[in-house]
Amino acid sequence: MPQSNAPFHQHEYDRRIAKTRSAMQAAGIEVLFVTDPSNQAWLTGYDGWSFYVHQGVLLTMEGEPIWWGRHMDSLGAKRTCWLSEAAIHGYADNYVQSTERHPMQHLAQLILGLGMGTARIGVEMENYYYSAKAHEVLTRALPSAHVTDATALVNWQRLVKSDAEIDFIRKAARISEKVVQTAIEKAAPGVRKNDLVAEIFHAGITGVDDIWGDYPAIVPLTPSGVDATAAHLTWNGAEMRENEATFFELSGCYRRYHAPLCRTVYLGTPPKEMVEAEQAQLEGISAGLEAARAGNRTCDIANAFTDVLRKHGIHREGRCGYPIGLSYPPDWGERTASLRREDDTVLEPGMAFHFMPALWMDTWGLETTETILITETGPAEALCNVDRKLFVKR
Amino acid sequence: MPQSNAPFHQHEYDRRIAKTRSAMQAAGIEVLFVTDPSNQAWLTGYDGWSFYVHQGVLLTMEGEPIWWGRHMDSLGAKRTCWLSEAAIHGYADNYVQSTERHPMQHLAQLILGLGMGTARIGVEMENYYYSAKAHEVLTRALPSAHVTDATALVNWQRLVKSDAEIDFIRKAARISEKVVQTAIEKAAPGVRKNDLVAEIFHAGITGVDDIWGDYPAIVPLTPSGVDATAAHLTWNGAEMRENEATFFELSGCYRRYHAPLCRTVYLGTPPKEMVEAEQAQLEGISAGLEAARAGNRTCDIANAFTDVLRKHGIHREGRCGYPIGLSYPPDWGERTASLRREDDTVLEPGMAFHFMPALWMDTWGLETTETILITETGPAEALCNVDRKLFVKR
Repeated sequence: MPQSNAPFHQHEYDRRIAKTRSAMQAAGIEVLFVTDPSNQAWLTGYDGWSFYVHQGVLLTMEGEPIWWGRHMDSLGAKRTCWLSEAAIHGYADNYVQSTERHPMQHLAQLILGLGMGTARIGVEMENYYYSAKAHEVLTRALPSAHVTDATALVNWQRLVKSDAEIDFIRKAARISEKVVQTAIEKAAPGVRKNDLVAEIFHAGITGVDDIWGDYPAIVPLTPSGVDATAAHLTWNGAEMRENEATFFELSGCYRRYHAPLCRTVYLGTPPKEMVEAEQAQLEGISAGLEAARAGNRTCDIANAFTDVLRKHGIHREGRCGYPIGLSYPPDWGERTASLRREDDTVLEPGMAFHFMPALWMDTWGLETTETILITETGPAEALCNVDRKLFVKR
Repeated sequence: MPQSNAPFHQHEYDRRIAKTRSAMQAAGIEVLFVTDPSNQAWLTGYDGWSFYVHQGVLLTMEGEPIWWGRHMDSLGAKRTCWLSEAAIHGYADNYVQSTERHPMQHLAQLILGLGMGTARIGVEMENYYYSAKAHEVLTRALPSAHVTDATALVNWQRLVKSDAEIDFIRKAARISEKVVQTAIEKAAPGVRKNDLVAEIFHAGITGVDDIWGDYPAIVPLTPSGVDATAAHLTWNGAEMRENEATFFELSGCYRRYHAPLCRTVYLGTPPKEMVEAEQAQLEGISAGLEAARAGNRTCDIANAFTDVLRKHGIHREGRCGYPIGLSYPPDWGERTASLRREDDTVLEPGMAFHFMPALWMDTWGLETTETILITETGPAEALCNVDRKLFVKR
């Protein structure tokens, strides 16, 4: 092995590959083609903002994984992966965004060259970085292969975190505390939202001591007033106003690991219904944390939370959380289990979730959330330490 | 029409829709389903970080476009689009990242409800936000429809910018100047790269006067030394060192419009080969700008540049630019024309490109680029005003 810049020790990658191969075997998959950048990084350490062109990792049942992508990014793979140079393959630049040729034609040749042209090949059908066109071209170019859907096969292997990963998430949590505290401190009537977001970015990227800040997979979501009835608005140049709630959906990021944390700030005296909703939300969060125990299921967390809300007369639809960890844009969720009524994934120690019991009401929104870790015994641990409440600034 | 928060006047959207419908007619498409967030925003004004779940815009030959997405994001559509509320459709949250149901089943019902079940439907087969699975589910759910590839149909309509769009790009260029100047000023031996990137983010998001900063579609790419031989590495917590070149690939962003700009800083005395390459690069850029005239072709720019490089003994592969404007992660390029030898798109006034004649060499990288506007007469206009050179800090 060459000198590696990858963030984890080799035995961590070996563990991940062994785990993935077991899942491949169970699914009858001989070759796995992984396009999700998070899965690529999890298996090989690859880290670069190059996922806007076709690239991926090929994993067979033996030997090193193969990183495949644009030639200029293969140089980045050599700088960031733990793989030997022989395992890194690049395609020529005239495949990029071309109407004449498609990178999947090149990948098919690589697969044929491995003698895998008749293999059972798993692809991530439901992934941002595996387009409908890519699938069409790849399957046409491998007419004798059995191409099958392996969406989230790797993602599921990521659900229980290793100690080394938990350490990274804890480091991200230190940054999350800093960015949320920065938002709370700087929010004031007359402050332009973009200027506040600039402070949030600055706090997050400088990080905490030697925990340097990486870019989160989602930019700050910071809507105020009626805009906060919608879940995913970003910011603009308007000034913050009195008598409005602003929620801050933020995460620190340490070497691509996240620990999302949301808090809401009200400038002025919040209306009675918001204060009542806050109490219901906080009580619901406590109930959810109590239910978030190894052996329980994901739905138990969601039901514990929504039962409390219902008791307070609040009807809430939608899931209230998802697993987090290593991620790239556009999502910091892992896209496997969900904290919702119809999901019955059994909780295990080492799972980490963004428990996301946000309330989006008719005229305002209230987000108070925690990144939680399922522990060996007892309720889940909230990894960030910021007062759990609606922050009121009069 | 309701009070609209969309960034452009209605006549601008009307123009875009008319142009897109002409292209649909020429392609024999009766219904266009647009998943590219940039295309959605271009047609409707929709703006939110919600593209990590399935959503899109349906455009038929008559009436308003239809925005379709997750229910909680339909509230954001009502806040950001110019559309009437009747044209905004949401699906229930249990479609999200579910193994039991897929949002495309819901979309198919919507299309059937429009009486379009046997129509010729264009979809963006090659797009980050239209997965292989989405295509499979949609086509199965519309067995009588003729689903056809309409990749980049809308993107091509975006190639020539309106005056209103050029105004936005010019505003982004003011921010680009600020972020690049910030990077150049703050770069010094011993400065941690993440701290420098924090300053870049802060400068970009605060913006320039009332030109507030939006998030660029690509995060700062800031590799130093050997890392700069790769094109798309981001940053880490290491200190900047003497006798290394660092390139800064950055863009300001104003209401989703970009003006990318790259400069390189050398800390110390650059080696002779780098200074020679700088001269070749600058001469090549001048030649490229001269060739970037209305009536010429995209390949003329690329050839003018690479001819100069060849004269200086530098062999360079890869395209050297792409159109820019409105964009969302993961790419600020428009993914239509390319500045490369094999592309013969005829240049027209109002086209804007990131002319990207970067050099990635064996042990270092040198990026000096410009966002350029094709003008009515004469060579292209470089929209940013930052000295075009290798910045040397001794």
